Amino acid sequence: MMERALVVLSGGQDSTTCLYWALNRFGAGHVEAVTFDYGQRHRIELDCAARVAVRAGVAQTVLPINTFAALGGNALTDANIGVRNGVDAKTGLPNTFVPGRNLIFLTFAAALAHPRGIRHLVTGVAQTDYSGYPDCRQTTLQTLERALCLGMEYELTIHTPLMFQSKADTVRLARDLGALPALADTQTCYNGIQPPCGECPACVLRAKGFAEAGIPDPLVERFRAKPLTAPESSLF
Amino acid sequence: MMERALVVLSGGQDSTTCLYWALNRFGAGHVEAVTFDYGQRHRIELDCAARVAVRAGVAQTVLPINTFAALGGNALTDANIGVRNGVDAKTGLPNTFVPGRNLIFLTFAAALAHPRGIRHLVTGVAQTDYSGYPDCRQTTLQTLERALCLGMEYELTIHTPLMFQSKADTVRLARDLGALPALADTQTCYNGIQPPCGECPACVLRAKGFAEAGIPDPLVERFRAKPLTAPESSLF
Repeated sequence: MMERALVVLSGGQDSTTCLYWALNRFGAGHVEAVTFDYGQRHRIELDCAARVAVRAGVAQTVLPINTFAALGGNALTDANIGVRNGVDAKTGLPNTFVPGRNLIFLTFAAALAHPRGIRHLVTGVAQTDYSGYPDCRQTTLQTLERALCLGMEYELTIHTPLMFQSKADTVRLARDLGALPALADTQTCYNGIQPPCGECPACVLRAKGFAEAGIPDPLVERFRAKPLTAPESSLF
Repeated sequence: MMERALVVLSGGQDSTTCLYWALNRFGAGHVEAVTFDYGQRHRIELDCAARVAVRAGVAQTVLPINTFAALGGNALTDANIGVRNGVDAKTGLPNTFVPGRNLIFLTFAAALAHPRGIRHLVTGVAQTDYSGYPDCRQTTLQTLERALCLGMEYELTIHTPLMFQSKADTVRLARDLGALPALADTQTCYNGIQPPCGECPACVLRAKGFAEAGIPDPLVERFRAKPLTAPESSLF
């Protein structure tokens, strides 16, 4: 029986690249996506994830999680808290840190995969550029993988194709996988706007990756103002 | 600084006993409870948990989880699926199995504990009488504990005081901790009724434990019909 994979698809650059990685590795028709509607500040991420899934031709399950908002106290789900750059002096973590968010996402992904007989989970977390999130690290994910296997009595593998890639590596990988057009549909900006603000840490990190890879960002290209009077750009 | 503990309180016999274990170990004023409103079939469990918390004088946080119901497909949260005794021939698991339920509960408990500086989680899972749930086993919980510590960069201990106790041991422990009166408020019956049906596997297991310990079940006592005409039972 052909192995199948479930990709945690957030609507961002990394998870979209991972979706194409999974399509390449497991084959079209053997890949599904799961997206979490967890009260994220920017609903546009959900729209992006849906568009990416449609473009890639994969079935997408959207699972709600109302627990993070109830926990409160972080800038990702609490509209009353502004996103601050850098880390909190007391905790050493960014104020967008939701404790255990990736652990929860992967555990629910496993709970979705289990009854479907899917044994491969794919997530776009990366340790290299990791912005202070300990739940993105290799050792964390390896330990969680074992906890999931034991707790569900089910052989599962968590794939993290971007774990040790730089942003530039990830951009090159996206190009090699034919994922660049899909990246025009992704959402990165911490301010939740398209065109992206270009100034928040997430935008800066993304731009740096594309620049280092020497590849134009399809998202930026999409919003590049066309010359108003260039005759060759008009179809009429 | 005095250590503090967060107890996962379901409203059942085991978690109630663990609440009193934590009060004994960490001291009154150093224990909190968290209860999950995850779409459980029997809402009476939530009422029981609230009554137990009030009686014990501990603060209780109720966290919603709407994800299990969205996952569907099991008898605990899906009203269209009847509870069956025994295990499924295909999966080897009871049809009340929600994959990863305890992993999710403990991860959210950790996410609640983290910003409060609480470093001890207490759960009433037991491997001895475990009814086919792999997420109740010692190795699973130990591995999860490590994943939580790594993923939150935070030293946490998961306590499982009932892990290797028989039901009779647990009843004796409840007696020694002064928890017996609180057990009158707990909910065990798979049919979600009080007085309990006395016939489902959960009721039978509970009754067996009290019988072996030679202690009357306070819940059963509470519903024992009083003689209709006994003059001393009337206040009027």
